[in-house]
Amino acid sequence: MNVNQMNIEENMSVLDLMNEFYSSGVLGAGRVGRSCELLSDMLSNDDMKVFMSVAGPLVPGGLRNIIARMIKNKEIDVLITSGANITHDLLESFGGSHYREYGFDDEKLNEAGMGRIGDIYTKSEDFEVFEKEIINLFSKIANSIDDSNKINIDNSTNMVDSNKPNYNENSNIISIKDLLYEIGLLIEDDNSILKLAAENNIPIFAPGIIDSMFGLQLWMFTQENNLVLDAIADMHDLSDIVFGADEVGAILLGGGLPKHYTLASNLLKGGVDAAIQITMDRSETGSLSGAPLEEAKSWSKAKCGSNLVSVVGDITIIFPLIYAAALDKINK
Amino acid sequence: MNVNQMNIEENMSVLDLMNEFYSSGVLGAGRVGRSCELLSDMLSNDDMKVFMSVAGPLVPGGLRNIIARMIKNKEIDVLITSGANITHDLLESFGGSHYREYGFDDEKLNEAGMGRIGDIYTKSEDFEVFEKEIINLFSKIANSIDDSNKINIDNSTNMVDSNKPNYNENSNIISIKDLLYEIGLLIEDDNSILKLAAENNIPIFAPGIIDSMFGLQLWMFTQENNLVLDAIADMHDLSDIVFGADEVGAILLGGGLPKHYTLASNLLKGGVDAAIQITMDRSETGSLSGAPLEEAKSWSKAKCGSNLVSVVGDITIIFPLIYAAALDKINK
Amino acid sequence: MNVNQMNIEENMSVLDLMNEFYSSGVLGAGRVGRSCELLSDMLSNDDMKVFMSVAGPLVPGGLRNIIARMIKNKEIDVLITSGANITHDLLESFGGSHYREYGFDDEKLNEAGMGRIGDIYTKSEDFEVFEKEIINLFSKIANSIDDSNKINIDNSTNMVDSNKPNYNENSNIISIKDLLYEIGLLIEDDNSILKLAAENNIPIFAPGIIDSMFGLQLWMFTQENNLVLDAIADMHDLSDIVFGADEVGAILLGGGLPKHYTLASNLLKGGVDAAIQITMDRSETGSLSGAPLEEAKSWSKAKCGSNLVSVVGDITIIFPLIYAAALDKINK
Amino acid sequence: MNVNQMNIEENMSVLDLMNEFYSSGVLGAGRVGRSCELLSDMLSNDDMKVFMSVAGPLVPGGLRNIIARMIKNKEIDVLITSGANITHDLLESFGGSHYREYGFDDEKLNEAGMGRIGDIYTKSEDFEVFEKEIINLFSKIANSIDDSNKINIDNSTNMVDSNKPNYNENSNIISIKDLLYEIGLLIEDDNSILKLAAENNIPIFAPGIIDSMFGLQLWMFTQENNLVLDAIADMHDLSDIVFGADEVGAILLGGGLPKHYTLASNLLKGGVDAAIQITMDRSETGSLSGAPLEEAKSWSKAKCGSNLVSVVGDITIIFPLIYAAALDKINK
Repeated sequence: MNVNQMNIEENMSVLDLMNEFYSSGVLGAGRVGRSCELLSDMLSNDDMKVFMSVAGPLVPGGLRNIIARMIKNKEIDVLITSGANITHDLLESFGGSHYREYGFDDEKLNEAGMGRIGDIYTKSEDFEVFEKEIINLFSKIANSIDDSNKINIDNSTNMVDSNKPNYNENSNIISIKDLLYEIGLLIEDDNSILKLAAENNIPIFAPGIIDSMFGLQLWMFTQENNLVLDAIADMHDLSDIVFGADEVGAILLGGGLPKHYTLASNLLKGGVDAAIQITMDRSETGSLSGAPLEEAKSWSKAKCGSNLVSVVGDITIIFPLIYAAALDKINK
Repeated sequence: MNVNQMNIEENMSVLDLMNEFYSSGVLGAGRVGRSCELLSDMLSNDDMKVFMSVAGPLVPGGLRNIIARMIKNKEIDVLITSGANITHDLLESFGGSHYREYGFDDEKLNEAGMGRIGDIYTKSEDFEVFEKEIINLFSKIANSIDDSNKINIDNSTNMVDSNKPNYNENSNIISIKDLLYEIGLLIEDDNSILKLAAENNIPIFAPGIIDSMFGLQLWMFTQENNLVLDAIADMHDLSDIVFGADEVGAILLGGGLPKHYTLASNLLKGGVDAAIQITMDRSETGSLSGAPLEEAKSWSKAKCGSNLVSVVGDITIIFPLIYAAALDKINK
Repeated sequence: MNVNQMNIEENMSVLDLMNEFYSSGVLGAGRVGRSCELLSDMLSNDDMKVFMSVAGPLVPGGLRNIIARMIKNKEIDVLITSGANITHDLLESFGGSHYREYGFDDEKLNEAGMGRIGDIYTKSEDFEVFEKEIINLFSKIANSIDDSNKINIDNSTNMVDSNKPNYNENSNIISIKDLLYEIGLLIEDDNSILKLAAENNIPIFAPGIIDSMFGLQLWMFTQENNLVLDAIADMHDLSDIVFGADEVGAILLGGGLPKHYTLASNLLKGGVDAAIQITMDRSETGSLSGAPLEEAKSWSKAKCGSNLVSVVGDITIIFPLIYAAALDKINK
Repeated sequence: MNVNQMNIEENMSVLDLMNEFYSSGVLGAGRVGRSCELLSDMLSNDDMKVFMSVAGPLVPGGLRNIIARMIKNKEIDVLITSGANITHDLLESFGGSHYREYGFDDEKLNEAGMGRIGDIYTKSEDFEVFEKEIINLFSKIANSIDDSNKINIDNSTNMVDSNKPNYNENSNIISIKDLLYEIGLLIEDDNSILKLAAENNIPIFAPGIIDSMFGLQLWMFTQENNLVLDAIADMHDLSDIVFGADEVGAILLGGGLPKHYTLASNLLKGGVDAAIQITMDRSETGSLSGAPLEEAKSWSKAKCGSNLVSVVGDITIIFPLIYAAALDKINK
């Protein structure tokens, strides 16, 4: 098969460009072309549950609305992300923002009350609002658990609706997924990932949530309030989703815990059927973040024979590009 | 100041080589030289609590004995790592091993019951032993909590000894750190990181532990046993350590949750006083894993004016090198 | 200034997507947005001479027609590339092709007579044709120099038309640029970069040309023929172009010799006025390929105050994307 | 085969540490261990000609004396490097130096007359001396060619001593290798790579030499003097060395032209028999610099069955480490 030389003309649509990448077929352009092909297959396959893992600063980095759109359109069935992305989604819901062009002198930024994430900046005044608001939401949720007698954990039952919260009747124990669901219900922001996920019954898992500004506030809240965050409980719900799915497709944006949690939960049923990975991490160090998707086959985290496409690149460039093209590919 | 040209002779000690790196002072060699200087300062500073974060496959990748030695010699005060490293430490304690030279055909490896981590391999028979043994330990610990009436969580108290387990009297709730401590006490393997940590009262934190083979077994155990893993509780102990320390130094091997947990917990007191970072991750994507240590200053996760050295490189090469040299530097 | 959250809709044009990247303004997407802005400025600025450096396998990797189009449309004024790209351009002109999907077993590929470049493949039969044809062209050119008495090198003269070949009357000495020009005139392939460059009077510089299959054939030719390739002569022409330009903009696709040759030749007049760099190389090793464009300011290879945008990414993805968008940006 | 856990003790020699890396056998440490094993084999094999390619700023970056030592001890038979490394070797021979700790504000550095290479700095006053001295050497060499009638190029002869200069009797044509040899003879600096190479009859090839400060001065010299640098001639000498060698081993420090020139010249006899590659470049873009050594087998640039070891890492750290250990390995 030949490498087709790409042709660039005026007035190209994103799909036109993607078709050039796909027909070239080699190097980065070829991988982007194949990842778009697979994404459009995933999004249009009704029998496939789509897990999306989101690591790295994608919410502060401009992908918040894209993730929100995918949830609203039920293009994904499960979202797995970091505490940081949840924190930054809420920060915007509470009126805060993310900023740019403040330079790279970190000691000056510190004095000015700004936190830096690459070339993205946060303001301490936004975090002050965040803290007040999130503590307020934690109180409402803790009180509603206290007031309620209906809530219980029942680990032995197969939960049909995996997104419905389940509490322990004896103490204020809540799972991470359920806490995020309850917060989502209380948010008033139509762009909120948490709100849209709750409304559309898309569960959000965040196994490392404690390691974030959200987690820090949660810890401070528990210094004077009775609330236990159960680190294990979400695995029950995740496994129900995996076993309830005919097929599973994974969109892995970045590595770390979000990537592994998707793969590890699918180990229970022999691995995912398809996966797209976009990351700058490489394989040499043996770290999971940069591991080639093929490696997941050895662990039965991806099925032997599954359709796996990896792209080495910046997610903020690559994902909007393939998502925009996949939308049009599906419609044609 | 001049770049000194390095001289390589026969019969050099590791410290001799490191002195050449240090006097060269530029590029990777210069950074390695400065990181060794800082490491020897950290290890010989009695007023400094040393946090070590370990991400990536460092236990399967040959650094198990080095981490164990540092714990035994009380060179570190806190270990923060991934569920995977804990799993692989236990795998070896239970008689298993890590293997090499089995090729890169992941479908064949799957058939042969081997899991691949870069060029490291595991065998399913070792994991079968692991599963039997770890479930056995979980049972012992769950039973001992049931039997005990002394255990309670007291969040408002400043715990003097942050490594002593504290349980809830009403239900089988345990923190991650305490669970790892209890397991450490039950292990019979003098090379075990978990055992040495428990014996030497060095707390191990693993905020993402659920996302590992250890976590998977824990979840399976809780399907028929009453045990809740409290994701928040460890923050109480971590903050006690931070507030109890005159100074904090951080050795950050890799990124991800282990890196951020060390930095985030030190945010409470204005940031670490010194830090060494070794990673292959880069800054362009804005991800925390590849973020320069300087960025931590903007967030007060590292103090303004703190001593920060980053090395871009493979941890399995760089860390043994600087640790071996630092040992001799301290003695001279 | 705020980070604008990107919106992805159906039926987006490449320019629509680029506008989302630009308004986001941060991380990779922001850098791509700014590089497109700068590219459209460069291409529409009549007072700016545009140098394009092309390193890495971009001709075999699908960018041949894009480079050819830019030459045909006189969007660039100078092309600086590697011997490999010239070899692969000629390989296609002589009827050969580039192939894909032949796997990664290099010993088997060797047996099958295939050369591998990442996931691109060449066939030895195409190289056999290449060798026959290129030797044929070398003969024609050597003979025409022999036959001619008009040709001379005149280093002290300011050459008005820098692309006209200038030969030494005493011996068969030719510069690299002139050799490529002569070959371009002899090629019969309307997609040929060399032919289009010769026809449109766009000089091609390839300072490392000897280190390629083209160079190897040239060496073999000189074993039985009198031809000297003057490595210095091109600097005369390059400097004329630099001094004759009001402003210089540089499009640096990859690093190595092509990147440095553009920057070094502009050192003569205080540096380029604007530059775009796209590469996966990083700065830690100090190598020029991964050096940030800012570093060029210290050397006067880029002017202080010049407009410099770097993108870390795969050129086969990033350049077609920004070029397609820039074409539409210019027209609007 | 098992992964052996490394043991770090006090008072380790570099060879002790290397033995730990080798016995671990995996990830970066394993690759370093194997590269040292191969290096000691290469250096102690009398039937093997060793080519060393040096790309990137290794002379300014502290490796000048190491390269000089290898030449003096005749541990290498051929040196292939960049014009930049030759420039910086001469800069030090002429009394200049390389500097550090001047910060990263490139516009300020420009004002202060300093050029930046990562965290290495040069001073314009050193370059002024360099320019004066190198022009002086060029004059001497050009005059000696003018004065001589003995010199001629004879391409059809198999030259027994490939390092002896061969000039054209009709015009001042010189090859790159011969020019560097003549300069080496004129240098008065016992640490000079060029001087030691000339004295020890180790040829230096620099196919891209024109693209450097050395090349710039050479061009300026030719504006008023008759000197032609023949880009092809060195291939005659290189091929003689390749055909005269029983076996060839390659030490590839960095990528680019120096890497490829070694591999391409060995293509003539079916490829190198052994090679070590140390680089931070990766394979995804298809560029030669980051290409895995295995890829060279498909092109017959490395023999099928040859011993190839690649290390991903910073050369200034990795090469002194493996070289120091290899010296002791050979003696034991």
